[in-house]
Amino acid sequence: MGNSYQLIIIGGGPACLSAGLDATRARLSTLLIERAIPGGQIINAELVENYPGFPHGISGAELGSLMEQQATKYGLEIIMAEVEGVEVGEEEKIVHTSEGQYRAKALIIAGGSEHGKLGVPGEEELRGRGVSYCATCDGAFFKDQVIAVVGGGNVAINDALFLTRFASKVIVIHRRDQLRATKILSEGAFARPKIEFLWDTVVESIGGDGQVRELGLRNVKTGTESKLEVSGIFVAVGLRPNTGYLEGVVALSQEGFILVNDQMETGVPGIFAAGDIRAGSARQVSSAVGDGATAAISAERYLSSI
Amino acid sequence: MGNSYQLIIIGGGPACLSAGLDATRARLSTLLIERAIPGGQIINAELVENYPGFPHGISGAELGSLMEQQATKYGLEIIMAEVEGVEVGEEEKIVHTSEGQYRAKALIIAGGSEHGKLGVPGEEELRGRGVSYCATCDGAFFKDQVIAVVGGGNVAINDALFLTRFASKVIVIHRRDQLRATKILSEGAFARPKIEFLWDTVVESIGGDGQVRELGLRNVKTGTESKLEVSGIFVAVGLRPNTGYLEGVVALSQEGFILVNDQMETGVPGIFAAGDIRAGSARQVSSAVGDGATAAISAERYLSSI
Repeated sequence: MGNSYQLIIIGGGPACLSAGLDATRARLSTLLIERAIPGGQIINAELVENYPGFPHGISGAELGSLMEQQATKYGLEIIMAEVEGVEVGEEEKIVHTSEGQYRAKALIIAGGSEHGKLGVPGEEELRGRGVSYCATCDGAFFKDQVIAVVGGGNVAINDALFLTRFASKVIVIHRRDQLRATKILSEGAFARPKIEFLWDTVVESIGGDGQVRELGLRNVKTGTESKLEVSGIFVAVGLRPNTGYLEGVVALSQEGFILVNDQMETGVPGIFAAGDIRAGSARQVSSAVGDGATAAISAERYLSSI
Repeated sequence: MGNSYQLIIIGGGPACLSAGLDATRARLSTLLIERAIPGGQIINAELVENYPGFPHGISGAELGSLMEQQATKYGLEIIMAEVEGVEVGEEEKIVHTSEGQYRAKALIIAGGSEHGKLGVPGEEELRGRGVSYCATCDGAFFKDQVIAVVGGGNVAINDALFLTRFASKVIVIHRRDQLRATKILSEGAFARPKIEFLWDTVVESIGGDGQVRELGLRNVKTGTESKLEVSGIFVAVGLRPNTGYLEGVVALSQEGFILVNDQMETGVPGIFAAGDIRAGSARQVSSAVGDGATAAISAERYLSSI
């Protein structure tokens, strides 16, 4: 039973590393399964300023690495694999992955969420050729160029502010007539001369010959169509939780987030969720880390009780 | 109106400093009211090993100070005062303190809870030197040693079960002849060979020279006194949330903890709670920090909506 553990954690972000830390400190044999490098979305963050304990901020990559170091110190095992399905057996939960199957009595699902797509012509073809979902990853490629950011939430406005470091102009395209982002972010963006806003507007197509050239736009109030010349487009239109493989296993919200109580318990005994993948998450590094600790303690209590 | 704010945070621990950080970053005028030095209970912790981001651990005092530095960086005001009462006015919440009254549209209550004490000689002097009130925090320090747990409720038995992962023997000392803990927990503990029980017994003193060495015991039925050699004693005789002044203001659990939903909202619009003072808290630095972030985001959303 080399593939059998007391606890399996699905995902590799802050919620997972926090859960892994508390679980292995409680001496649970614990496996963490992540498809990429541990750290999750924060490894793309240039500076994390609101995770308590780092008054001067810390780069996301560094914070992720510190968390990984700390979690593995107590014996957390980490493998790289794609999770394909979860089966609830009588005695154990079985996790099917691209690298075979793993079994555990308890499961913490904390695989985060993925960036939403526009679903318009050109988006897939020009991905990585001017279409990006990660400003901190790709911003530097657009020095002195005109680029667009699609969205009106915190992520979109954060991205727009960040991109002014490189671009000559950043045009925020938002389908409503006001932002959803917090006041501090919005005010910062309004005050930045490099940032312009296109309200009540959606992107209908992305055009270009091997590289993004122009966007097809439509004003949702007037119906007017127009073209906008840009060299790049950053899509920041929300998050989709990675829960496709969990339908029928645990209860999900309408948007696909995992429903849990305040102990991070799903309705299935022994299955817990934490971080951005659960409904109602505050989507901060700190709240993810808190969720992870709560889930680990709940898992430990569950394992003691069976 | 010099005493009027958008948000008042009651308490000074990790939940409060985390809330203060996110609130001031969201540009809310925010006052934190704490009766002592900011940092809360963690300032007594010699080494915090399970707050993600510090792989080598960090002293509680240092972590508290870093968190305070970070929270005040964005304009958090802190005053030292004892909170005596909270009044819910039509437009504002009024906080009555030993230093006068303060007003705010929103309130985050995160004043923590206090561990019940035995009140016996040696307890205060040997705190952090073998006397602990938190098994998950300090259990790992007692590898292969004999330790005692005082109490008979769920927390005590959970602690005893948890501590078997480290200790060679765990002796549960309880003043009655049966446990208050749930059946499932009790049965788990009775079945664990490493756990022994001393019934009808109270601790009368804690002895040791710079480190816990032995306990003075008394059987409450026979009056017999005895000594017990241990390296550590975990006191689990209940938590007292600091909510006496909140009766009739927000809904409390039977034990006095504040009832909140997963957004940290109490039933009263504009009043939120976070950390150890709320029902269902995992009672870790990381979960308190997560609660604080969630409460601040909820408060910001509430203030935007009124």
